[in-house]
This record gives sequence, structure tokens and C-alpha cells, in this order.
Amino acid sequence: MNVSSRGVKAQASPIRRLAPYADQAVRSGRKVYYLNIGQPDIPTPEIVMERIRTYPGKYVPYSPSGGIPEFVEAMSRYYAQHGLEVAPKEMITTVGGSEALQFAFWALFNPGDEVILFEPFYTNYATMALLAGVDVKPIPCDGRTGYHLPPIEAIERAAGPRTKGILLCAPSNPTGTAYTAAEVDAICDLAKRLDLWIITDEAYREFIYDGMKHESPMTRPAVAERVVLVDSISKRLNMCGARVGTLVSKNAAVREAALKFAQARLSPPTLGQWAAAVIDKVPASYTQSVVAEYRKRRDLVLDGLAGIPGAFARKPEGAFYLMAELPVADAEEFVIWMLKEYKKDNATVMVAPGDGFYATPGRGKNEIRFAYVLEADALRKSMDILKGALEAYPVKVAP
Amino acid sequence: MNVSSRGVKAQASPIRRLAPYADQAVRSGRKVYYLNIGQPDIPTPEIVMERIRTYPGKYVPYSPSGGIPEFVEAMSRYYAQHGLEVAPKEMITTVGGSEALQFAFWALFNPGDEVILFEPFYTNYATMALLAGVDVKPIPCDGRTGYHLPPIEAIERAAGPRTKGILLCAPSNPTGTAYTAAEVDAICDLAKRLDLWIITDEAYREFIYDGMKHESPMTRPAVAERVVLVDSISKRLNMCGARVGTLVSKNAAVREAALKFAQARLSPPTLGQWAAAVIDKVPASYTQSVVAEYRKRRDLVLDGLAGIPGAFARKPEGAFYLMAELPVADAEEFVIWMLKEYKKDNATVMVAPGDGFYATPGRGKNEIRFAYVLEADALRKSMDILKGALEAYPVKVAP
Repeated sequence: MNVSSRGVKAQASPIRRLAPYADQAVRSGRKVYYLNIGQPDIPTPEIVMERIRTYPGKYVPYSPSGGIPEFVEAMSRYYAQHGLEVAPKEMITTVGGSEALQFAFWALFNPGDEVILFEPFYTNYATMALLAGVDVKPIPCDGRTGYHLPPIEAIERAAGPRTKGILLCAPSNPTGTAYTAAEVDAICDLAKRLDLWIITDEAYREFIYDGMKHESPMTRPAVAERVVLVDSISKRLNMCGARVGTLVSKNAAVREAALKFAQARLSPPTLGQWAAAVIDKVPASYTQSVVAEYRKRRDLVLDGLAGIPGAFARKPEGAFYLMAELPVADAEEFVIWMLKEYKKDNATVMVAPGDGFYATPGRGKNEIRFAYVLEADALRKSMDILKGALEAYPVKVAP
Repeated sequence: MNVSSRGVKAQASPIRRLAPYADQAVRSGRKVYYLNIGQPDIPTPEIVMERIRTYPGKYVPYSPSGGIPEFVEAMSRYYAQHGLEVAPKEMITTVGGSEALQFAFWALFNPGDEVILFEPFYTNYATMALLAGVDVKPIPCDGRTGYHLPPIEAIERAAGPRTKGILLCAPSNPTGTAYTAAEVDAICDLAKRLDLWIITDEAYREFIYDGMKHESPMTRPAVAERVVLVDSISKRLNMCGARVGTLVSKNAAVREAALKFAQARLSPPTLGQWAAAVIDKVPASYTQSVVAEYRKRRDLVLDGLAGIPGAFARKPEGAFYLMAELPVADAEEFVIWMLKEYKKDNATVMVAPGDGFYATPGRGKNEIRFAYVLEADALRKSMDILKGALEAYPVKVAP
């Protein structure tokens, strides 16, 4: 009586698997600054929270498998506000972006197919691929060039006969990289040439800094039928726990398959959809102030890193993550040590070890991922703790 | 550029795929009585609804991947109230019972393994199996004996070298059958002898009539390590749209695998868990009155069927479904005809065609499934409409 191979092979989340060490630190009386997980501390728009408090139902019924029409229509208007033409019928509401991704893997690929991911990548992509029987083809990106894409020839060389798709997360979790129009054009062109699907994960669409513009494969007509957009309200409404996302496709066959998967799990969450059915009415000022806040936080983390000998990070353009090199040989050991052994003013910091975001063995060992989701003062304290921890860390790496 | 084989093979839900015909009937001005889907009209307990309206957060954060501790602890006490010993650590909170089932298929079986289902079965089991690469081995049960299990020797003969598990839904959706202690004992004994997993879907645990007692494989110590309980708050709290369920196992390896799958999709819905974290405090009188109401409705449907020449159903013991034979050759055609062509007092009825609940080709063609989820007056009218429709139906079946 053994569990399945996929049950054994699936990787524990590098973002969540160290939680027991953090729990122990809290039980021992220390404060933990959590920079390991994309769970922001910013309030949800009041117009949305008010709908939860005034939910009019006497019970909580299933929603249609593809989503509540009012929510889907609001999302369509929201997309128009962001320059994307998406009709309500081109959308399937999902249980967060996670399920949209799962549906995309199921709908687009057969077991044994291969999908290109740019490394480092959001770690759950690998588990979702495993659960769909799909192999991951990681293409390394270099932190020294801000994890931007390698030359398109390098990507083309990596594609083989089993390669059926490319997954782009833009702006990227975990690197914060926002791809340029030229990069997105090149990916679309390659996908067309090699007959590949494009999955584009745009959960952080609005979170772009320093005047850069979000670029989406969805706006490239030449690949309209081969793009699947995976999306989520989690970050833009600070409703990660509502579990509401969308799968968008202009391809009727893809939507038909996804709708059958959606019917098999019956319904996405009704309360979250009900609350978020005003997403198109959230004032632009809300998003602007959130984005400004994140930009400030990003700069605080970068300032902190600049003061740590041997640490390195290039300024990322978007999302609320960044990867940094630390002067340690094994970042996971260092993170566990911070949680188990270190404190400054009775507090410590939790970040995610970098190697969990790589599929290539050995890569990312000296990197960590920050989710800069705490307010400025907590971030300043966190960076100070990190600096102190690196000074106190007994395991020295050869210079 | 083709979608995947599983995208093509997945079956559209027989419960939901006729929805466009019903929508059209509504648009044309007719009233439709929906008896096709297990979406009850009974209010959620006030103690639960009140928590939604007083949700204290300023935003809606992720919950832990395995569930909010307060919810998990409340479920543990709820299980104790129902004679099941389940420690909080033996439970993983899921996105409805659907996801618990998906996790069980992923954790227990490898692609190519086979699982025994008793036919007719809840149709989404087949899609979940397909998406896990698992084959379904249907074992027919006979409506004339209330869809109770065939002799254990027949089940044993059907098991082959690839058979790795048995799935029991008790009481059953779609038949309403509640299995006896002897039936459950025999299944447990067989599972032990043939080294099989047992998945037990108990979403309808409380819905048992006429003094029968719910029997669960979870209470049989001899199979404690091989049972996975798939469960949901949807029906017992009338919160189908909250999307909160549980996977329960005494087997640490199963839980470890399921927790990794849970981490990959981050979090079950926070609002539903928050609301349902008082499930152990819902007064027993609530459940008693709900069960009494369903028993009354079951009897109304049976009374109605008794007045229809050529219709047949044995009285089921539980859940809020029943399967009935109708005097038609193709029940799906009849259901579509009712939605497209028939009206009585400007109303019609939607039920689910029976063949969607069978894997064996040709079976169930003359059956329909009722979900008796409407109040007494609507049910009486529905049965009257059904009777009239059968009289008016132009396609006659040979007697």
C-alpha cells in the first residue's frame, strides 16, 4: 500500500515548507517578519469589503461552473480598462490563478509533452506540470541581467519535438522582471514558428514601476488563438484568500475543454466572485497608491541589500518580489538558521530559499526570494535583521 | 494546434450540460423547476451567515494550505459528534469535496491504475479519474434492488491486477442508497484481502431516513490506514458555493502527498472556512429539520412517480437524490424535449438524464436523476408537469 509516484515526487512548496520553523520561532516568543510569501498587508478596496458584509443571500449557492455572469462581465470591463479586449464568453472563472494554470496544463498538453519555463520560475508551475504529466524544460535566466530573457536563438535551441508550449509570467514572480515589448514579440514570433501554445500569467499586471508598460501576448493578433491568459484577483484586490481567478482564451476548443474541467469541480467560490463583481469600479487611485507603496518598498529592500557586503540584486521592474544573491553557500540552511538561532531585538526574518524556484539542480543555492509585502518600517527592520544575521552567521563562504 | 486528448475525452457534466436549453426556456418566458442539480433552497444556519456579515478582516488573506486551524478544529469536534474520531492533524481542508476527491486520486493511484465504482455513480468521478490518468471499473447495481451492492464475489471477480481502489459514495449520489453495515463490512474485508484503497465520499452523512444509520469505512479499525474520507460542508450547511471540503486520512503518507498538492494551489477559500468554523455549534435541531424536510420531499417525488404509468423507483434511504426509470427509450431526448417544447401552466421541469451516471455504454438510457431540492409545492407542481409531459411526449416506447 504505497502512495502514488506523483505523491512522492511532488515538491513541498519552498515558500511554505519552512513554516514549521517559523511557527517554532513564534512559539518561543520571537517576532517573525514574513517576507517569504506574497500575502500583502494592504486593505482590500472598501467597495469590495462592503459587499461581503452585505451579502444578501440566505444561503451560499453554487455559481455557474464558468463563473457568475456579473463577475465575468465586470472582469471584461476591467480588461478593457487595461487595454485587453476580452468578451465575457472568452473567460472561465477559476479557483484562483492556480486553477486557471491547472486547467491550461490539462487542456493544452498531453502527458509526456514539454513546456518551456524561464528559470527561476514560480515553483508551483513545476507541481502543476507534474500533476498533468507534463515535463518542464527550464531555460536559465541570469540575475546579473535582471533575469531578462536569453537570446531567442537560445530558447529555440532548447525546444525539442516534445515541446508544446512556453509559459511566461509577466511581471515575474519570483524575479519581478517585466519583459519588454521586444521580448514579448520575440516569444510570440517563436511560438508561431514552432507551433507552440503560450501561457501568460499576468496576476501582477498593474504592478509595474518606473514608467514601464505591461506587455501581454494577448494583445498580439498573430498569436490570438494560441495564447491562454492565466489571471487572478488575489493581488490586485488583496483578496488572496477569496480564491478567484480567470482563464482567458480566444480559442473556442480551449475554452470548451476548460469548461468541462470546470464542471467536474462544480463551481468557483461564490462569495469571492460576489464581492469582486465590482472590480471595474475600484477607483484608479486605489491601484495607483498600492503600486506607489510597492515601489517604495522595493527601493527599501534594494537599499538594505546595497548595505550588505556580498549581497546582489538588480532593480526589478514589477510585481512585489525580487531575487537576491547572498554571500552564503546554501541559502536554505541560512534561512533555517535565522528562524532557529538568530534574533535581533527579539525578532527574525523569513524569506524563501532561491533553489526552490529552479528546476536545474544546483542553481539558485545562494539566492533568496523576497516578497516585499510588509510596510516600510517592518521592511527596514527586516533588512537590518538580515544584515545582522549575515554578520553573525557562522558558516562562511569563500570570498 | 490541438487541445489535449483529456480535453477532448472529458465528459460535459450530464447535470449541467443541458443548462443552455433551460436558459432558453427561461428567456422564452417559461418557469423552469430545476431538479437537475444538488443546489438546495434551504437557508444556511444563521450562526454561519452571521459570520460572513461580520467578517472582521480588512482584507482576505490566504489560509494555510491545509486549512484554517479554527475550522479544522471545529470539523474535528463535528466528526466526534457523528461518531468519527478525527484529529485535526488527520485532516486537510480542500476546495469542496471535489478537490478532496482529486487529491485522493492523485495521491493513491498511478496513471494506468484502476478504481472500482458502483454504477450508477456521481458523474464527476469519471472526469476526476480521467484527469488523474486512472481508469474506471464500473460495477453495475440494479435499480430493482435499490442499487444496493451486488454479491461481494461479483465485485471480487471484477477486480484485476490493475485495480488499486474502491470508491464508495454513502449515502449515494445519484441513487440515494445508504449501504448497510454488512455491505460496508464486506467492502472493507475485500479491500484488505485484495490490498485496495477505499475512498469514501460522505458528503451526505446526515441525510439518512426511516431510522437507518450511516455506516462509514472510517469506523472499521482493520482498514484504518487504507481509507480516505472525502467530505464537504456544502450540503450540510447549504453552502455549496463556499467551496469548503475536507480530506481525512489516518495514513501519514497520504496526508503528506495531499498537503503537497494543497500547497501547489496555495489555499482553500478563506471566507467559507471562516464562516464554517462554527460547524460544531450548529444546533442539532437545524439538521433534524433539514433531514425531515428532505424525507418529506423524497416521499412527494415517490408519490408523484407512483401516479405515472411505466415509471419506477424504489424508495432510497438517504441523500436527496433518486434515480427513476421512465417509459421512454432515451431520457436525454425527453429532457431536452421538456425544456424545448413542453409547458404546463407555462412551466417545465429540468432533471438530469440517467446515462451520464453510467460508464457502461447503453446503460441508464431510460433513467433520470432527481435532486429533490425544491420545497413541497414546487415539487408537487414538478411531478404534475412530468406526468403531463410523459402523456404528451410524441415518442412512444414499446410496452
